[in-house]
Amino acid sequence: MSGANPSLELTPQAGGVTAAAGFRAAGAMAGVRRTGGLDVALLVADSPCAAAGVFTRNKVVAAPVVLSREAVADGMLQAIAVNAGNANACTGAQGMTDARAMQAATAEALGIAPGLVGVASTGVIGASFPLGLVEAGISDAAVELSADGADAAAEAIMTTDTFAKQAAFSVTVDGVTFTAGGMAKGSGMIRPDMATMLAFLTTDAPLNAEACRVVLRGAVRATFERVTVDGDTSTNDSVYLLASGAAGGGPIGSDDPRLAPVAAAIEAVAAELARMIARDGEGATTLVTVTVRGAVTDEDARLAAFAISESPLVKTAVFGRDPNWGRVAMAAGKSGAALDQDRLEIRLADVLACRDGAAVEFEEAAVSAAMDTAEVGIDVDLHLGDGEATVWTCDLSYDYVRINAEYRT
Amino acid sequence: MSGANPSLELTPQAGGVTAAAGFRAAGAMAGVRRTGGLDVALLVADSPCAAAGVFTRNKVVAAPVVLSREAVADGMLQAIAVNAGNANACTGAQGMTDARAMQAATAEALGIAPGLVGVASTGVIGASFPLGLVEAGISDAAVELSADGADAAAEAIMTTDTFAKQAAFSVTVDGVTFTAGGMAKGSGMIRPDMATMLAFLTTDAPLNAEACRVVLRGAVRATFERVTVDGDTSTNDSVYLLASGAAGGGPIGSDDPRLAPVAAAIEAVAAELARMIARDGEGATTLVTVTVRGAVTDEDARLAAFAISESPLVKTAVFGRDPNWGRVAMAAGKSGAALDQDRLEIRLADVLACRDGAAVEFEEAAVSAAMDTAEVGIDVDLHLGDGEATVWTCDLSYDYVRINAEYRT
Repeated sequence: MSGANPSLELTPQAGGVTAAAGFRAAGAMAGVRRTGGLDVALLVADSPCAAAGVFTRNKVVAAPVVLSREAVADGMLQAIAVNAGNANACTGAQGMTDARAMQAATAEALGIAPGLVGVASTGVIGASFPLGLVEAGISDAAVELSADGADAAAEAIMTTDTFAKQAAFSVTVDGVTFTAGGMAKGSGMIRPDMATMLAFLTTDAPLNAEACRVVLRGAVRATFERVTVDGDTSTNDSVYLLASGAAGGGPIGSDDPRLAPVAAAIEAVAAELARMIARDGEGATTLVTVTVRGAVTDEDARLAAFAISESPLVKTAVFGRDPNWGRVAMAAGKSGAALDQDRLEIRLADVLACRDGAAVEFEEAAVSAAMDTAEVGIDVDLHLGDGEATVWTCDLSYDYVRINAEYRT
Repeated sequence: MSGANPSLELTPQAGGVTAAAGFRAAGAMAGVRRTGGLDVALLVADSPCAAAGVFTRNKVVAAPVVLSREAVADGMLQAIAVNAGNANACTGAQGMTDARAMQAATAEALGIAPGLVGVASTGVIGASFPLGLVEAGISDAAVELSADGADAAAEAIMTTDTFAKQAAFSVTVDGVTFTAGGMAKGSGMIRPDMATMLAFLTTDAPLNAEACRVVLRGAVRATFERVTVDGDTSTNDSVYLLASGAAGGGPIGSDDPRLAPVAAAIEAVAAELARMIARDGEGATTLVTVTVRGAVTDEDARLAAFAISESPLVKTAVFGRDPNWGRVAMAAGKSGAALDQDRLEIRLADVLACRDGAAVEFEEAAVSAAMDTAEVGIDVDLHLGDGEATVWTCDLSYDYVRINAEYRT
């Protein structure tokens, strides 16, 4: 990897959201989640940080999103408090009051200004917010804060997730090593139109607020906005980036040559987390990477890749390990992307199944077996132009139905 | 009902697609459908008919659709041949050759010109077409044609449908009774963008070709285009209307005052069939009628109604009889429709669950019980304007996954 572009040598690191210097985290059991376990997380920087946030485009917006948009507008945060089990969405004026109280309780526990605190909630929509439980959880978490607290925090933000989602990478620029880390939760109601459910990215690079915004926007577009579990966009989607600067060096603005390698590390973290979210989609048995090439435009490729990724018929075929490429053709055809069916080429699990819009002989049993893994590729070439897009999704299983038919009752 | 508008008194009739005078139908067992049963249907008029067709907007288009668009372009048909079990889609040049052969075999069996024959296929996409079996089935069906053949024909066009879909209504205008009937199949890959899977409408009213087109276009827009099972638009969607004129009276053009009552009867048939398709969506346990009112425009209402109807989270909640109105709010919010969350009102099974965007106290157990029926209503009022739309859909159950994970293998 050393050579032409040594600055882009990314090294995986342990430590998740606290891998970058200058951050501590903790999780607490507050009793908000019906099923028990950790359910309140704190992520705290040693001092006020340059920060940026990207939030849901759903027109029904949860109270913590409304409040946090305000809090991060000045490009500075020091802490984020998160609870699982209750989304504080569709909760009216009381929801806003509760979100402000959650912010104030965090500020008080940490001895910082409320304006430096972002809040995020995930869970049931429309239920009244259990403020007392969350406040107690914040107090408990505040005394547990540590640079080793990433695991507990990542666990505390989970709802129907089956594993905690963490990643970190470091990159060395001009002899200074910068680290970027993060944690996320996903699982259901995942079709970010702007951001994903919840993701928290940190770096010790001395990015200024503008650089945070630029990097976060680019990373989100390339990663979280390419994930879909069920096509449903949450009311609570939030992605944050906090830059502590603890790695040293002068401030990095949006035109600094050090920004590109740092941004690459941050995007690598986001990509890892995004793929974990797809892999851990509710009920998922496999990660599906849908790549569309040869479209007239990238936007056409994106349309086709999302239509394939969100087709219940494609997703159930993958669950059944059925190399039913006709459903892929159907989904591409309905997507709105320019398409000439006589040029359509489809590969399932790297096996050519359709060329020039018609079947190619292949051994179904072998392809079915090849699909029975943790990662399946669906590759479509429209043979019309240079447009390309990749979307990560998962299959649709009995467990998706079970989880969502039984989620509340 | 007699009074202001006696001409709109519609009387339900038995007899389905052969209820209208001048039509015969039959079904045959050709061995195309893997699971056995009738799988080739013929619908034949006593003489050449004014006719219209509406076809899929999917850019991947099955061969029989390409061929039938040509056949009906002159506004005249006498027969339609249908097979289930193989869609003859993504079959390339051979598929077109096979569709033409299917048309020719039908013409020969009936002793009519090939240009008077439409063909339709439904089933697996991308498998080579079993022409020999279908031709034999057409020969068998041709000798079984009868005015009582509607049941057999309706059964022969089914794939994963659990019941045959037929309807008929009559209307009397100026002492002449006109009858409209029809049959349809649906079940999966149902999100008509132009037409639904397959539906065949007949009338003995003497509509001319232009009147057929106008009436069919309006009926499809109001009915089949308001149904979604899984958001997936088939490559084979086709809806036909054939007008035999056997009821008598002078020709009815598009400006004839008799057209409105006849159109109402035809639309009533289409609406019955459309609701049956939603009710019999793959794995469905209940018909869900989603009505959005108070939108700024009808198009906004349609966007919101479809987003709610196609949300896997809403559909699984209905399957779980979970009055989880927050998911309805989420889906409306992501739909793109103009929306002010503080005005949002939601009713589940006629019970007010959300007003001004926040929860209203209601007895969850009672609403859950009220949802445990064959028809559930989800009613949303955006309180912004007069736009309104209704969409019919169904819940998402384990059986949807089972049916589609196991469909081919």
